[in-house]
Amino acid sequence: MAPRSEDERPTLEDVAAFAGVSRSTASRALNDDTYVSARSREKVLAAARDLGYSPNQAARSLVTRRTGAIAVVLSEPEARLLDDPYRTAVMRAGYRELADVGCQMVLIFSDTREDLARTVRFLEGGHVDGVLVFAPHRTDPLPRALRLLRVPVVFGGQAADLRRGVHVVDFDNEGGARLAVSHLVESGRRRIATIAGPQDQGAPIARLAGWRATLTDAGLDPAGLSEEADFTLAGGATAMSALLQRVPDLDAVFVASDMMAVGALRTLSAAGRDVPGDVAVASFDDNATLAPAMTPPLTSVHQDPREQVRTMVSILMRLLDGPDLEPAAQVLPVSLVVRESG
Amino acid sequence: MAPRSEDERPTLEDVAAFAGVSRSTASRALNDDTYVSARSREKVLAAARDLGYSPNQAARSLVTRRTGAIAVVLSEPEARLLDDPYRTAVMRAGYRELADVGCQMVLIFSDTREDLARTVRFLEGGHVDGVLVFAPHRTDPLPRALRLLRVPVVFGGQAADLRRGVHVVDFDNEGGARLAVSHLVESGRRRIATIAGPQDQGAPIARLAGWRATLTDAGLDPAGLSEEADFTLAGGATAMSALLQRVPDLDAVFVASDMMAVGALRTLSAAGRDVPGDVAVASFDDNATLAPAMTPPLTSVHQDPREQVRTMVSILMRLLDGPDLEPAAQVLPVSLVVRESG
Repeated sequence: MAPRSEDERPTLEDVAAFAGVSRSTASRALNDDTYVSARSREKVLAAARDLGYSPNQAARSLVTRRTGAIAVVLSEPEARLLDDPYRTAVMRAGYRELADVGCQMVLIFSDTREDLARTVRFLEGGHVDGVLVFAPHRTDPLPRALRLLRVPVVFGGQAADLRRGVHVVDFDNEGGARLAVSHLVESGRRRIATIAGPQDQGAPIARLAGWRATLTDAGLDPAGLSEEADFTLAGGATAMSALLQRVPDLDAVFVASDMMAVGALRTLSAAGRDVPGDVAVASFDDNATLAPAMTPPLTSVHQDPREQVRTMVSILMRLLDGPDLEPAAQVLPVSLVVRESG
Repeated sequence: MAPRSEDERPTLEDVAAFAGVSRSTASRALNDDTYVSARSREKVLAAARDLGYSPNQAARSLVTRRTGAIAVVLSEPEARLLDDPYRTAVMRAGYRELADVGCQMVLIFSDTREDLARTVRFLEGGHVDGVLVFAPHRTDPLPRALRLLRVPVVFGGQAADLRRGVHVVDFDNEGGARLAVSHLVESGRRRIATIAGPQDQGAPIARLAGWRATLTDAGLDPAGLSEEADFTLAGGATAMSALLQRVPDLDAVFVASDMMAVGALRTLSAAGRDVPGDVAVASFDDNATLAPAMTPPLTSVHQDPREQVRTMVSILMRLLDGPDLEPAAQVLPVSLVVRESG
């Protein structure tokens, strides 16, 4: 951590703002990276000079105090990790966004309780300058353990049951569900079921709450209309079967992830139900390789993992510049992309 | 590296062999891990006592000299990395096999030349005890840079154009191609084309050589029968179109990866060619989630990424115990799994 006497010195942010360039461009210019135009470099160096920000100071801190590496920790059963499009999008975004600010991403899978001690030992061993963590499961002990670290930590999405004192970048999960379900209500659907995600995680809990509140607000009864699944294609297919059996007259379904919606579409097709004629389908994620490619293309709530990771990196960089940023939850807006399915 | 005077001390391998348990069981027993039966623990501790191997010495080296972390470096255009089933199998296997010997995997993507300096700096910064590297591209500067590291390095597959002085665990790519193409020849096929992988990488070069040699040995002319693609589904589909146009009477195709074979099957189906009636298809990988799931199920050369990673981890553990292991290429056997496609 920077000593208090350094609090008033200009930050990299200041230099970037003064020069009228992005933070990453300023960082690249000051680190003598090749991928900066001569003009931007000149502006950044002039800004640094004017503000009394020493590029040498930045270089020195990189060489001596810092490793230049940022850990991205995914705390998730490993079997899920590499099959889940949201997680792979996060890995990709982490790599890109960290490279963009000149940092080495080191990716860590932390699956079991046995991993916990190892992971914490590595993270507090001086091997990384900061940590980005995705640990959605309510009972996961990792987030609490990470609060004790002396390196800055930013959480992607609600972390276990931590509510205060942490830096979090999340999506508006409840608001997104409300958008999707309101759209189904407004298009005349009345028996709107839901396939919820695992109810030991913050995001699917919020999506289920958004579905329920929207139905209640519209005077519709949610009783018996929800089924929980595990964010997999097979889980979505099975949950859809259960719903069709229990509620044969359902006319819409809000599915808490694109991957589960793919499974639901298969079940509906096998059951001879036309989408959207008989059953409208809306889902969550708007994954670029899934949602538009389905038959029919999926109406889905758009969230951008890259935007989430970019925001997390930006908070981490501010924490590395100085410890004065108040912990807060930053909620990113989502939007509804209406396609043929509902 | 261990000083020379320590060369004669018993290794963990010795303790495991003496106790009649696996290396990882011995490691767990000596590290007081919970997942060891009381009986194994007793045998291991007795063996350590008898051989003069001190569990404290192992524990001390873990705490002081070692970080307990092993880097897995994937040097590959990032766009490819998370879509390629072989790479994701490697990540999964790395996580599992390293956890099995009590190590923390830190995964590093190294995509561009810009990443090179960062990656090398991290790897030589004392943050990891050893490195497993997958760097198949011939012109990749990373493998040469890694030879200068003072931490042990084991390569998965041929690394760039390095031939000597490195620890490599590879599959018998040429032998595997020979198995597949011989099978096609023996089942009466005479116009056997190939969809080769990228010819800037060792494995696809060897697979193409195996195809060519087998045809020549059988008195068949390979001229004009090969098409190169990029290991993607779309690339396989395009290459198959080109082959059908150029060689309308082809009666078989050997495809250098399952993913490309999926693309080839789509093209053949769209062109109204029956598989295997008109065209037999054999591929390489035998990926568990692809090969048996296709229509028709794919005849494919079986290689096991987990076995490769396990062997790499075992070599790395021997290098960590003492520096006396001669660098060598270990070639893992492959086998042909015959299914309906050819």
